[in-house]
Amino acid sequence: MKPLYGAIEAGGTKFVCAVGTGPEDLRDEVRFATGRPEETLNQALDYFRRAQKKHGKLTALGIGSFGPVDLDPHLPTWGSVTATPKPHWADTPVAPLFDKEFGIPIGFDTDVNGAVLGEHRWGAGQGLDTLIYLTIGTGIGGGVMMNGQLLHGLVHPETGHILLPRDPADSFKGTCPFHDNCLEGLAAGPSLEQRWGKKAPELPADHPAWDLEAHYLALGLQSILCILSPQRIILGGGVMEQPQLFPLVRKKLLALNNLYIRHPSLTPAGIDSYIVPPGLGNRAGILGALALAEKAAQK
Amino acid sequence: MKPLYGAIEAGGTKFVCAVGTGPEDLRDEVRFATGRPEETLNQALDYFRRAQKKHGKLTALGIGSFGPVDLDPHLPTWGSVTATPKPHWADTPVAPLFDKEFGIPIGFDTDVNGAVLGEHRWGAGQGLDTLIYLTIGTGIGGGVMMNGQLLHGLVHPETGHILLPRDPADSFKGTCPFHDNCLEGLAAGPSLEQRWGKKAPELPADHPAWDLEAHYLALGLQSILCILSPQRIILGGGVMEQPQLFPLVRKKLLALNNLYIRHPSLTPAGIDSYIVPPGLGNRAGILGALALAEKAAQK
Repeated sequence: MKPLYGAIEAGGTKFVCAVGTGPEDLRDEVRFATGRPEETLNQALDYFRRAQKKHGKLTALGIGSFGPVDLDPHLPTWGSVTATPKPHWADTPVAPLFDKEFGIPIGFDTDVNGAVLGEHRWGAGQGLDTLIYLTIGTGIGGGVMMNGQLLHGLVHPETGHILLPRDPADSFKGTCPFHDNCLEGLAAGPSLEQRWGKKAPELPADHPAWDLEAHYLALGLQSILCILSPQRIILGGGVMEQPQLFPLVRKKLLALNNLYIRHPSLTPAGIDSYIVPPGLGNRAGILGALALAEKAAQK
Repeated sequence: MKPLYGAIEAGGTKFVCAVGTGPEDLRDEVRFATGRPEETLNQALDYFRRAQKKHGKLTALGIGSFGPVDLDPHLPTWGSVTATPKPHWADTPVAPLFDKEFGIPIGFDTDVNGAVLGEHRWGAGQGLDTLIYLTIGTGIGGGVMMNGQLLHGLVHPETGHILLPRDPADSFKGTCPFHDNCLEGLAAGPSLEQRWGKKAPELPADHPAWDLEAHYLALGLQSILCILSPQRIILGGGVMEQPQLFPLVRKKLLALNNLYIRHPSLTPAGIDSYIVPPGLGNRAGILGALALAEKAAQK
């Protein structure tokens, strides 16, 4: 019998919980709004208590969390959400709570590291070993796998905060309180809404917003390409649900690279399979958490 | 007896060859200008033929090469310098020549990947596992170690070509034929010389050139910090021999991060040991090649 895992996609807006053995067998998914930490975490604890009664003992639990988070297993603060601006959540221990309750291996990582792991296991990253999963939604964040391992390093990547050359015709000040012209401040969902006065899904496909959006995303990808040299770039998140964005971003990255880095993936024939949507679609988050559980169990 | 290794620092301007067992025992170092490939590679072959007669059989050979290079061990072009603009060197097989001649394990990688490996083994990266070695000289390039492994990915990093916001007061067009405002085009040695009309070593320490130089380097490091999350940043190369640059770059990176990523290394007390010169000094290149040999022997 395949081991049963628990999974939590712990987002700043909503929590998703599920149990299962893999993408073909994901059971009992529930979602609830992210409220105060005690309340939200108790809802998740209750869910898994009930799920164990119904489905049997969990082998491990995976948590893909909004951040910043502490991923250093040598520190007592491991498994916490740390300096988040989200009210009440700063310095909240998350993983230790589940560890204490269930006494099973806990895989805790950023939501995007979970997503890149899940895409590698079951989605658009299968067979490769160096990948980035970039989510473009309320914020922008990147999960990185390199040589088959997730990247933490000093803290963990904060890809949304790379600084970009601003388009000369763009006078929008950006939405990031920390940086004047970072990728997240210029290109995440809230910047689209504030710059154009409409939410992203309400902007028509031929609106100039999308060309500028693709321009900033391609600038970000050029830096990612030069620094990480990923074998594939997976773009997820709500903003990327606009299908017109992918061809624009691909074309602009080719133009920015300007034939400098030479590889079949960086040609008009190869770029469509180089910059891709998540193979797991909108289940990349929860299946990523499931992949974190599987990895924790294997340790 | 310790195994004896051969090392080649294969630069676009000069080749350095040596044999030895480690930093305390590096013998017989020779240097010669990089001419046409046949001539230069024959000089290196001759050197190691003689060195073996004098010092004994080599266990392995390491080559840290200028690039771009082919690092894919599954391709017949593995071990070649590929699309370099350097006359006559495009598509030159380098490593296979030494493989054929000596029949010993060959460690072939970029010069900067060699340097980061050497710094990890014997220099400023000891005890850490996620590092970048960035050289700022005639060009700008980065070698990356992540979770203890060297990064290749799609090709290999080309860190010099990340695109930066240009300083509004800087009208210099940049030196890169591929990109209008990449780090290398705005901040490598030739851009200093062209922008200010003097070679870097001739510019006084209080010249405004250094403040602008540190500004562009810090912008590049901010992207590196956000994408790679390195535990330490090692800055080498001729331009960094100006001692006034380190304090300027450190201060500017702290200002750009603006307390966003929180870590003791990103504070005034921690930054001096976060952004550092190579522990191996100007031997980082040749000892990096020696570390590549050691790694090849261990495979």
